Amino acid sequence: MIDLTLLADGGIGWIDASGPASPLVLSTRIRLARNLAGRPFATRNAARDREAIAEAMAGAVAGTDALGRAATFRLDRLDLRDRLLLHERHLVSKELAGLGGEPVPVGAALLVQDRVGAMVNEEDHLRLQGVVSGFALEAAYAEVDRLDSELGQRLAFAFHPEFGYLSACPTNVGTGLRASVLIHLPGLVLTKEISKVLQGLAQVGLAVRGLYGEGSEVVGNFFQLSNQTTLGKSERDLLDHLGKMVREVMTYEEEARAVLLRDARDVIEDKVWRAYGLLRYARTLSYDEAMNLLSGVRLGVGLQVIPDVGFYALNKMLVHTQPAHLASAHGVALDDPSLGVRRADFVRTLLQDEGRRAG
Amino acid sequence: MIDLTLLADGGIGWIDASGPASPLVLSTRIRLARNLAGRPFATRNAARDREAIAEAMAGAVAGTDALGRAATFRLDRLDLRDRLLLHERHLVSKELAGLGGEPVPVGAALLVQDRVGAMVNEEDHLRLQGVVSGFALEAAYAEVDRLDSELGQRLAFAFHPEFGYLSACPTNVGTGLRASVLIHLPGLVLTKEISKVLQGLAQVGLAVRGLYGEGSEVVGNFFQLSNQTTLGKSERDLLDHLGKMVREVMTYEEEARAVLLRDARDVIEDKVWRAYGLLRYARTLSYDEAMNLLSGVRLGVGLQVIPDVGFYALNKMLVHTQPAHLASAHGVALDDPSLGVRRADFVRTLLQDEGRRAG
Repeated sequence: MIDLTLLADGGIGWIDASGPASPLVLSTRIRLARNLAGRPFATRNAARDREAIAEAMAGAVAGTDALGRAATFRLDRLDLRDRLLLHERHLVSKELAGLGGEPVPVGAALLVQDRVGAMVNEEDHLRLQGVVSGFALEAAYAEVDRLDSELGQRLAFAFHPEFGYLSACPTNVGTGLRASVLIHLPGLVLTKEISKVLQGLAQVGLAVRGLYGEGSEVVGNFFQLSNQTTLGKSERDLLDHLGKMVREVMTYEEEARAVLLRDARDVIEDKVWRAYGLLRYARTLSYDEAMNLLSGVRLGVGLQVIPDVGFYALNKMLVHTQPAHLASAHGVALDDPSLGVRRADFVRTLLQDEGRRAG
Repeated sequence: MIDLTLLADGGIGWIDASGPASPLVLSTRIRLARNLAGRPFATRNAARDREAIAEAMAGAVAGTDALGRAATFRLDRLDLRDRLLLHERHLVSKELAGLGGEPVPVGAALLVQDRVGAMVNEEDHLRLQGVVSGFALEAAYAEVDRLDSELGQRLAFAFHPEFGYLSACPTNVGTGLRASVLIHLPGLVLTKEISKVLQGLAQVGLAVRGLYGEGSEVVGNFFQLSNQTTLGKSERDLLDHLGKMVREVMTYEEEARAVLLRDARDVIEDKVWRAYGLLRYARTLSYDEAMNLLSGVRLGVGLQVIPDVGFYALNKMLVHTQPAHLASAHGVALDDPSLGVRRADFVRTLLQDEGRRAG
């Protein structure tokens, strides 16, 4: 059983809502796809290739500042609950966690430490990741860039002078960079402007996903916005473009919220306070309901309609009410019938504490 | 505009929940149908008959202890909001209030004072009424009996030595007595035992109605149980029979609640606390939603799951969130769009006060 409490801040540094614009943008995440030169891509390599890659990676990170003290998890040695736990923290992809029913690929491994981490033997040999609180592309990039530089001194990455970094999937060739922000857009959803905005984003090359990346449903009005392609552009270009687009979306969201307050204040106040009332008093909550109610309360706090609730607490509820997090915290199975009651307990207690803290 | 604050306890003495079993039985109401000898029944009399009856009644009550200081309302001189207000307080029937679209019959009048009242020129010339808190048939009968005796000394009632008191409708001939209790049966509704119980009551001659009497819907799990016929039985028999039946229903309800707590405590606690959370925080509430949520909270308080809320407060919310009560309290029209917000304000403030009062 994984004990993530051994990691700094439980391995989720972004949760403290300390970053810029963190009421709206929960986290900024940048990952770099890297492959070892002279080894077949993961899509066509053998178990001994994967073992060799994991070994090379372990040797390389040991001496780095960025990941030298990192915890290492062999996904293929973890049970489903722990694999899901890591996935819920956005530390490993659905594929690496083997959540689609497929067993975890042999030798898959993960290394995490606060704001940086890496997946080994996922679609690429390495996927390096930096995650920071709020809307902070530069800071996230600085984290992962440092890790990339340190590892690059120890490992030979597959690199082509014309194309850049090579990767298993052509969409990642070039910088191998994918930057994404997790953003909360209830205003655009409530004003029904969201599809127009998402269409616009697709036209300028951005991908829109749910809370858990590719193929995941949008729940609680949380969206992941990221760049689609990396080929033929510099890291700088990619980050500038995404940054500009995200700032536009943030402006649209703020405008939508202003419209809601102007045209439907009663309805909005009622909606967010009902969400608060249910979270504050319900004795059992499903995950989907909790997410939707948390979205309502987050909107209410953002609009300054609901006082006495902090974004740190809101982020905590978002993370720790997920099924594997709850099951893990209480040492029960993922399908334990008590999860709904425990979820409600967690949320209720935290909201009571917030109320008391505020006096 | 009616100002009911001039009446003792606003004219609703039963609201204080001081009577026996008042958590379950909100009020006990007994009315006696009386007609003046030598005057045609209301179903076939003329305007001058109705005027004469109103005048005779006014003269007779003036000297009574029971109604001597009563306020008199001429329904045909009140606007719709005030007529509805009196109906919501169970002081006048739908017919006398002219709520079915028909205008109020000329000369209809009402007299009320705390626990007794009377309708004039309804289906019968006089309908005398006694209402008390909780399950208290004797006390309610004592109230109305005193009024009946006092009026009987001043007015000649139509009485037949064999049949008893005569009335416009044969179902009221005899004692002219109808006793009813307003009872809260959420346990029987939630355990789906209610239809069986209601069928049983029909078989032993009891009528079951909604919150506002004949033809009204059941809302918030509040039921009115009353005797169907009066002919050939003494007042004592009628009250004994109803009392026995109501005690049985109360036992069934208590058993149903025990079953709920035993077999579905989590579900019930969740249900009642959600109701509390919504009432405590919602910013707008429809009447039906408020009734249903109040039913949930009342159940929670009765089960001792929810502390710090009294039955007096629960009764107040039941009465004062009704459309005409709200509209009247704020001096606005019945269709004023602010009523939902005002209803939520009233409930929220009262629940906050209850919480503070309890410390």
